[in-house]
Amino acid sequence: MMEQEMQDIMDQINVLDISSADLGEIEKAKVSGNVETMKRIYQRLTSEDGSKDKGKKKVTRLCLEARKEENLSEWYSQVIQKSEMIEYYDVSGCYILRPWSYSIWEAIKSFFDGEIKKLGVENTYFPMFVSRAALEKEKTHIADFAPEVAWVTKCGKTDIAEPIAIRPTSETVMYPAYSRWIKSHRDLPLKLNQWCNVVRWEFKHPQPFLRTREFLWQEGHTAWANKKEAEEEVYTILELYARVYEELLAIPVVRGRKTAKETFAGADFTTTVESYISASGRGIQGATSHHLGQNFSKMFEIVYENPETQEKEFVYQNSWGLTTRTIGVMCMVHGDNKGLVLPPKVASVQVIIIPCGITANSTRGDNDNLISRCEILKSQLNGIGIKTKVDLRDNYSPGWKFNHWELKGVPIRIELGPRDVKNNQVVAVRRDTGDKIIIQNEKVCLETGDLLKQIQSDLFQRAKSEMDDHTAVSHDWGDFCLKLDQRKIIQAPFCGRVEFEESIKKDSARDNVAEEGQPAMGAKGLCIPFKQPKQLKPDTKCIHPNCLEIGKHYTLFGRSY
Amino acid sequence: MMEQEMQDIMDQINVLDISSADLGEIEKAKVSGNVETMKRIYQRLTSEDGSKDKGKKKVTRLCLEARKEENLSEWYSQVIQKSEMIEYYDVSGCYILRPWSYSIWEAIKSFFDGEIKKLGVENTYFPMFVSRAALEKEKTHIADFAPEVAWVTKCGKTDIAEPIAIRPTSETVMYPAYSRWIKSHRDLPLKLNQWCNVVRWEFKHPQPFLRTREFLWQEGHTAWANKKEAEEEVYTILELYARVYEELLAIPVVRGRKTAKETFAGADFTTTVESYISASGRGIQGATSHHLGQNFSKMFEIVYENPETQEKEFVYQNSWGLTTRTIGVMCMVHGDNKGLVLPPKVASVQVIIIPCGITANSTRGDNDNLISRCEILKSQLNGIGIKTKVDLRDNYSPGWKFNHWELKGVPIRIELGPRDVKNNQVVAVRRDTGDKIIIQNEKVCLETGDLLKQIQSDLFQRAKSEMDDHTAVSHDWGDFCLKLDQRKIIQAPFCGRVEFEESIKKDSARDNVAEEGQPAMGAKGLCIPFKQPKQLKPDTKCIHPNCLEIGKHYTLFGRSY
Repeated sequence: MMEQEMQDIMDQINVLDISSADLGEIEKAKVSGNVETMKRIYQRLTSEDGSKDKGKKKVTRLCLEARKEENLSEWYSQVIQKSEMIEYYDVSGCYILRPWSYSIWEAIKSFFDGEIKKLGVENTYFPMFVSRAALEKEKTHIADFAPEVAWVTKCGKTDIAEPIAIRPTSETVMYPAYSRWIKSHRDLPLKLNQWCNVVRWEFKHPQPFLRTREFLWQEGHTAWANKKEAEEEVYTILELYARVYEELLAIPVVRGRKTAKETFAGADFTTTVESYISASGRGIQGATSHHLGQNFSKMFEIVYENPETQEKEFVYQNSWGLTTRTIGVMCMVHGDNKGLVLPPKVASVQVIIIPCGITANSTRGDNDNLISRCEILKSQLNGIGIKTKVDLRDNYSPGWKFNHWELKGVPIRIELGPRDVKNNQVVAVRRDTGDKIIIQNEKVCLETGDLLKQIQSDLFQRAKSEMDDHTAVSHDWGDFCLKLDQRKIIQAPFCGRVEFEESIKKDSARDNVAEEGQPAMGAKGLCIPFKQPKQLKPDTKCIHPNCLEIGKHYTLFGRSY
Repeated sequence: MMEQEMQDIMDQINVLDISSADLGEIEKAKVSGNVETMKRIYQRLTSEDGSKDKGKKKVTRLCLEARKEENLSEWYSQVIQKSEMIEYYDVSGCYILRPWSYSIWEAIKSFFDGEIKKLGVENTYFPMFVSRAALEKEKTHIADFAPEVAWVTKCGKTDIAEPIAIRPTSETVMYPAYSRWIKSHRDLPLKLNQWCNVVRWEFKHPQPFLRTREFLWQEGHTAWANKKEAEEEVYTILELYARVYEELLAIPVVRGRKTAKETFAGADFTTTVESYISASGRGIQGATSHHLGQNFSKMFEIVYENPETQEKEFVYQNSWGLTTRTIGVMCMVHGDNKGLVLPPKVASVQVIIIPCGITANSTRGDNDNLISRCEILKSQLNGIGIKTKVDLRDNYSPGWKFNHWELKGVPIRIELGPRDVKNNQVVAVRRDTGDKIIIQNEKVCLETGDLLKQIQSDLFQRAKSEMDDHTAVSHDWGDFCLKLDQRKIIQAPFCGRVEFEESIKKDSARDNVAEEGQPAMGAKGLCIPFKQPKQLKPDTKCIHPNCLEIGKHYTLFGRSY
């Protein structure tokens, strides 16, 4: 009884950020088994003016104070801050990517950059400023971006002669140069990519990673003589995006084409990978790959001489982009009420080793031995390419460390105590399931490697089941709306016309269904999945009751980010 | 005689950008040995309206039309454009980094990023926007940057409430967060770095790489409990910068401390690596590493609790940056009248293989054999990590290709003709010296590798000799000015005071000494070299005739970028 009470109070203390002085006191109370003393310590630590010295920063709680299923947006905000992914910033819509999240971006970059280099794409850097004349050249394009463009008008105290825009994307930055570089069919295909920042001054509610005013991305821009080859590349790149989500981030995606309404401004068609966040029941665009046809080449006069006819021809173009949104989707999909859950393939720390059972009673020799075992294990794992750290901080208890690294989402925790040393074993704990596995020392490298693979695959399978369970087919408007309110994404026959996509959105919005405290928005067209749920029967009507036309394709609809 | 004439005219034709139709005609004229026909072809190709079809883009000359020693700025402008490093852009002071230059930045990044990660530095990304309040917090700092800061005042058509600055550097962007993150001595040292773009809207004449309004760089920002450790890092990083210049770019640098006048705004002291461009006789700042002392921590309240005294202490900080200017210095130092000369360690193509002697008379089998030999050689060299390409384009003559790859600065050209195949050999030509070396097939991997190392080392030695020959010591003002006009950089005793640094600059300017068409500017204090030329005698007067104080250190002066 007493022991249980002590355990409970220790659990609460273990999530606090504690000074080393306080830790000494706690250790003493624990050894003496005095529950009342321990309670007093806890109260002092958590009371408003509990800290001993005036002006000392207040003890912050380590654990999440919101639950994912109850208040998603508060949960998200806490999880990304407390896990040290994001720091908020004093310019609205801008956020600081801390090393814990930036390292995930580096993992994504490293994979994608390697793959596109194999395809012959070269990296480059174009200015982030664009003149008004260039920006406004392609009319459809600028119409879409204009309201979100940030303009520099002053330098120091001087007004500059002509305001200069910051790139929201670089079609109009790059293509005047493409026009100069491309003369002959031998200059094609031209395949360039850049990793950079872009700015879209959105007025919708910003959310770190998911909708930010400045974000990081790669943008690929290629030019081709041959339309068919250009189109093939659109799909090749889309498949790489799908691999970033599915293989690296363990997130299933639906590959498809955007509806007319959602097609990129200036593109002939847009392909997309769409993901699903079950906690909100919303779809989310993962990344897009566009075929621009000759729309930009006609405006920017990007021509080559056809070697057979000696006629000038306009090139065919693609553009494609993947952003830091990826990281936000990963947090949303895998995170739980203990914090982040990182897929092993993008975790900068895959295994955290925590020595346990160092107490006031242990001898110096025992402790040294335990620490050296931790260090040896770390070297062994790092030696076979498993990214491993050991947490030897002596101002935190093992319990605090468990919580800390769970919050940060490290895939495997290895606990190593005196008894484990004696038994030639370690205890591995999976972040995703909490399962404890005892591994014998001689198998630790092999089994840890296998376990990481298993976690990666299980995370994907779990997300896939969630998505499959919430993906429906519907042929009836009432049923469509019902399923939407059940947080599903729905494949329904759709005529494809912009005005009816707008009607579907308007008519499926609900004032009485709350979603994160707001009235639930209506359904957007997420994509026309390449893999249709079934053959559409010839006379199937479009899903919207007022539309008299037949559905052209099953189109995936859902509430969306 | 006739042959020599033919050779001369071919040399001229080989630097033109020629269509395949024209190439056929040239080949015919060459086979028939008709010099007059060849002259007519040349005239047609180079005359104003010489192209056959109206509106066809004019044939551009491949070769440089300015000489480095005669018109440096025109030479520079041509070499960086014609080698495809830079494309000019319609926003003044902004330039496009094409793959040929961006790959050099990638090589520098890869080296430096690896080295700082070994030091425990983590990468991060902070917003590029900064609020006025944060920007203006450190007064000395902002005083220096204010005139060059670009301000966003509008988004779409809407004026934003409070103008937002674009980072000219990120001290004021980052340090409010440092203040929140750092609580205990256990949070120190904090070592972050980011690779990003910054904007300084300079009104001086812009030059690609060397002075641009937007540029790419890395900026490291570290915070320390211990002043001595912080200072040590300043020098550790400076040494990495020196290695980027000396080991990667083959450019010698002088390591030193900046004078009071040239110290970074807000720093206690600034260290620098300074290089020398012999073609202009000017020094150029390579990269700087600053110790900020407690200047920023006091303004931004970045404090930790001293574990011994329990008192709050302000942290010590450093910041350090390396920019894309590196690439410009490399072009300036090594380039010659044939184009770029790339140091092997940063060249994305280290060896270019060019098949020679494919003529109308060769049989199909001979040609195929030659091409397959080129491909095998390429695989062999790539197999041992030598970055090799083969130029198989059939619309360009070998002569054109020689010029093309020389212009682009590829360290080694390998020529392979039917006779070489027969003799089991290749001909390697060094870009830097033009030396031709015959290498037997069985030694080609080994010797090419050695040759690349030799080129890297010779480039450095040549630049080092140039710099040494133009570095002088002076104790007399008349002699100082004379040496300056001889394009030297000069180490002279200097009192260190800002007003006398200004007098030195003013009084050493020359109206009558032309420099790139402009009156020559005066000498700036480049640095106080760590390695002083000799012990300064106790009573040595400061170099400026009006200064009555003694010189504190030999200080390196020179005209500068």
